[in-house]
Amino acid sequence: MADPRFFTVAGPFSVAEIAQRTGATLGGAGTADLMLRDVAPLETAGPEALTWLDNRKYLDQFRATRAGAVFVQPALAAGAPASATLLLTEQPYRAYAVAAQAFYPEPPPEPGIAPSACVDPTARLGEGTAVEALAVIGPRVEIGKRCLIGANSVIGAGSVLGDDVRIGANVSVSHAVIGARVRLYPGARIGQDGFGFALDPKGYVKVPQLGRVIIGDDVEIGANTTVDRGAVRDTEIGAGTMIDNLVQIGHNVQIGRGCVLVSQVGISGSTRLGDYVMIGGQGGLIGHLTIGNGARIGAQAGIMRDVAPGETVMGSPAQPVKEFFRQVAAVQRLARKKGD
Amino acid sequence: MADPRFFTVAGPFSVAEIAQRTGATLGGAGTADLMLRDVAPLETAGPEALTWLDNRKYLDQFRATRAGAVFVQPALAAGAPASATLLLTEQPYRAYAVAAQAFYPEPPPEPGIAPSACVDPTARLGEGTAVEALAVIGPRVEIGKRCLIGANSVIGAGSVLGDDVRIGANVSVSHAVIGARVRLYPGARIGQDGFGFALDPKGYVKVPQLGRVIIGDDVEIGANTTVDRGAVRDTEIGAGTMIDNLVQIGHNVQIGRGCVLVSQVGISGSTRLGDYVMIGGQGGLIGHLTIGNGARIGAQAGIMRDVAPGETVMGSPAQPVKEFFRQVAAVQRLARKKGD
Amino acid sequence: MADPRFFTVAGPFSVAEIAQRTGATLGGAGTADLMLRDVAPLETAGPEALTWLDNRKYLDQFRATRAGAVFVQPALAAGAPASATLLLTEQPYRAYAVAAQAFYPEPPPEPGIAPSACVDPTARLGEGTAVEALAVIGPRVEIGKRCLIGANSVIGAGSVLGDDVRIGANVSVSHAVIGARVRLYPGARIGQDGFGFALDPKGYVKVPQLGRVIIGDDVEIGANTTVDRGAVRDTEIGAGTMIDNLVQIGHNVQIGRGCVLVSQVGISGSTRLGDYVMIGGQGGLIGHLTIGNGARIGAQAGIMRDVAPGETVMGSPAQPVKEFFRQVAAVQRLARKKGD
Repeated sequence: MADPRFFTVAGPFSVAEIAQRTGATLGGAGTADLMLRDVAPLETAGPEALTWLDNRKYLDQFRATRAGAVFVQPALAAGAPASATLLLTEQPYRAYAVAAQAFYPEPPPEPGIAPSACVDPTARLGEGTAVEALAVIGPRVEIGKRCLIGANSVIGAGSVLGDDVRIGANVSVSHAVIGARVRLYPGARIGQDGFGFALDPKGYVKVPQLGRVIIGDDVEIGANTTVDRGAVRDTEIGAGTMIDNLVQIGHNVQIGRGCVLVSQVGISGSTRLGDYVMIGGQGGLIGHLTIGNGARIGAQAGIMRDVAPGETVMGSPAQPVKEFFRQVAAVQRLARKKGD
Repeated sequence: MADPRFFTVAGPFSVAEIAQRTGATLGGAGTADLMLRDVAPLETAGPEALTWLDNRKYLDQFRATRAGAVFVQPALAAGAPASATLLLTEQPYRAYAVAAQAFYPEPPPEPGIAPSACVDPTARLGEGTAVEALAVIGPRVEIGKRCLIGANSVIGAGSVLGDDVRIGANVSVSHAVIGARVRLYPGARIGQDGFGFALDPKGYVKVPQLGRVIIGDDVEIGANTTVDRGAVRDTEIGAGTMIDNLVQIGHNVQIGRGCVLVSQVGISGSTRLGDYVMIGGQGGLIGHLTIGNGARIGAQAGIMRDVAPGETVMGSPAQPVKEFFRQVAAVQRLARKKGD
Repeated sequence: MADPRFFTVAGPFSVAEIAQRTGATLGGAGTADLMLRDVAPLETAGPEALTWLDNRKYLDQFRATRAGAVFVQPALAAGAPASATLLLTEQPYRAYAVAAQAFYPEPPPEPGIAPSACVDPTARLGEGTAVEALAVIGPRVEIGKRCLIGANSVIGAGSVLGDDVRIGANVSVSHAVIGARVRLYPGARIGQDGFGFALDPKGYVKVPQLGRVIIGDDVEIGANTTVDRGAVRDTEIGAGTMIDNLVQIGHNVQIGRGCVLVSQVGISGSTRLGDYVMIGGQGGLIGHLTIGNGARIGAQAGIMRDVAPGETVMGSPAQPVKEFFRQVAAVQRLARKKGD
């Protein structure tokens, strides 16, 4: 059970209710009226807990689980213990997510402005919005309804936030227009100057960074991630895109809808990503590239040319995935031959 | 045009005035008295806007631009639309930077200390300096004239800042001596302990970090970049060096003048860079190396040995650039052969 | 000598006293009653200073040093200048660390809560603890004795800190249970939501992150490093583990005792590290892996499979170290052959 110092559990919910909320169908022990009191991982879930299987690595734990109920794909259900009620679904992790939200609903912000916060008199805050201790809200900022502005965060002059935005502690935002339900995790840096300067005999000349950061609805931006504002156009992040921690987004970058950028990815200036692009951890893209819809870029890949829609690439410099593994194998064989 | 919520445009300026300020010469339509009201990118610039071409990738946009005036290299000027006044220069991006600074001059700090800031009585602040809300200035700090200390930033005891330094929101500085016109972007961490400890049967023994961070004039340090202070000597960053976001500079590192470190570069302890070294994004250097003046290190390169002055290296482990591409091609051929 | 604006030197100490504290034995000039007034690097140490040699790269500096006393391994002592008293030890860097702590003892926190700090009335603070300016301590937080909470840091509701914990400026902590003598450097982010969501036809569904971050005694976590809390179990960092700057630790990751993670390492969710694992800078590990005790992972390595205890791996995808260098050499030969 989640530590009650940090989380409050709701429920209980019957198996039938969970099945209804998630669209899963009953299997195994099939006790529709079993009351579930919590969610838990396979290896610690007890008879009143709900769990899930979504990775074959954990099949042994699945076979041994004492959980009362398990979300599982029909194809993997065979090994289930007799005691378990199965909740059959093709998307067990999605079903778990929906159920866990029911058990642990996110508390709404407690409306109000902490006495220690510094809110400019020209800022406008929507109904139900909370501003935590020592946050700074600059002139002409517009914040929607039911937002949460975390402690010690700074929202710079003129920025606009939609409804239900949640901003963690120690975040800074400037020159930004942010949609609804966006989440910025602690230490995220949004809207600072991009890395722009020109060579000159006397040193570098700073190029004024005159664009904004435009963030669509339902975007998440991880802890200590940096998103520079545009230089002469905007830096844009499309609706529903998920960005992990310590990611770098350069100026003028355009990211489509529903992309997933894993931790420590770096995207250089003016590169454009289509929709539903996925980039593994530490992947890097040089500037001025075009990455097509649905492209998949492997962890640590180094992208020096455009990637076509739907293409999967790996390696540095990146290759089509089959070519990459063929090269890895060829080099292994070559090294063994020379070694003999 | 830049969003007036965030930027205020100056001007207008005549083509003749822009030519004079940037050293460009007139070509194309050549209307010296045309009044320019803004800067804009090639594809959106209108007849009263100034733009530039510095990348052959955008030649098509150049041929179609409706811009009133364009900075362009003489060698690329042929394809210009008849409507465009050309501002011919070998360095169009530098010329654009100078012109954009004229259109969008950076406002000076508004002098004064925010009532919510915590400034130690022993700190000394120069004339014209601004301390924003909830910033913390420690004992014996010395800050020059016309500086800007951003909201929620912390300047630790004894640190020294030159004139015209600009520090963004949520920055922390300690054990540092910082030159004039330095810019630290939001979340930069300057002067914390380096990663120093010794092995011991009972665990690691912390090595006191007794050096400082010395930053030359005109240095820029990006958002969430970390610069550790020295262990027994100083960590030094030479004048005019440009450091992007999320870069790591280890203790005792010495960086020369005019270097450019792109985002997510990591430099391990005690490595020395000469002047005008360039390192691409995510490049990594182990410790105790010497990198010569003007060396160029590719994105994602892994540097495990010294690099000679002027040398260009790529790959991990890094190779001379020609050797690197020869290896990439050789492996591609090998893999295809085996695959047949 | 360390800049007195930032450091206060203790001492002097006699050579005999330093030898006793560090277990070193006398050699060379061997003047046990020489008074040492400071520590310094080989090239600047004078006749009253103590230095050390622990890297053959600096043998030339060792031969030329003017230092009064030098920690050195017996095997490297031959080249010492006649003026130097040698302090012979197999672990000169460890001995230097102990001596430097004597010369520069870390001042204890100055107990008390800054008037500008926001401490929730339900928080409990141990004796001797200092809370700096504008720090925020949330409801039900428990902080041990002699802790230091840095300026503008935020400790979220319910978190627990052991004795002698030191937290730098602008840190955020939530959902965390932290042991004794832990150090969190500026900008570290501990306990935010992990990167968890499930695919859904309507977009991504957020997976509630219901675990904590558990940090053992004597752990150090570098500047701007991010440690996500667990999703359904805890993220755990074992006692004595050292984590450098800008490292990413994903949700559910379990790290053993005494591990060393160099800057910009990334560890994806649910991966487990044994004890004394070492990972070089920018190394990346995908999720759900098991890394055995004492494994060594090279800088920039890309780990896509389990690593056995004691194994050393390099490259991306990682190979056993000998195999890696054999492959590098084989590709070099191949490229030269083709090039001829």
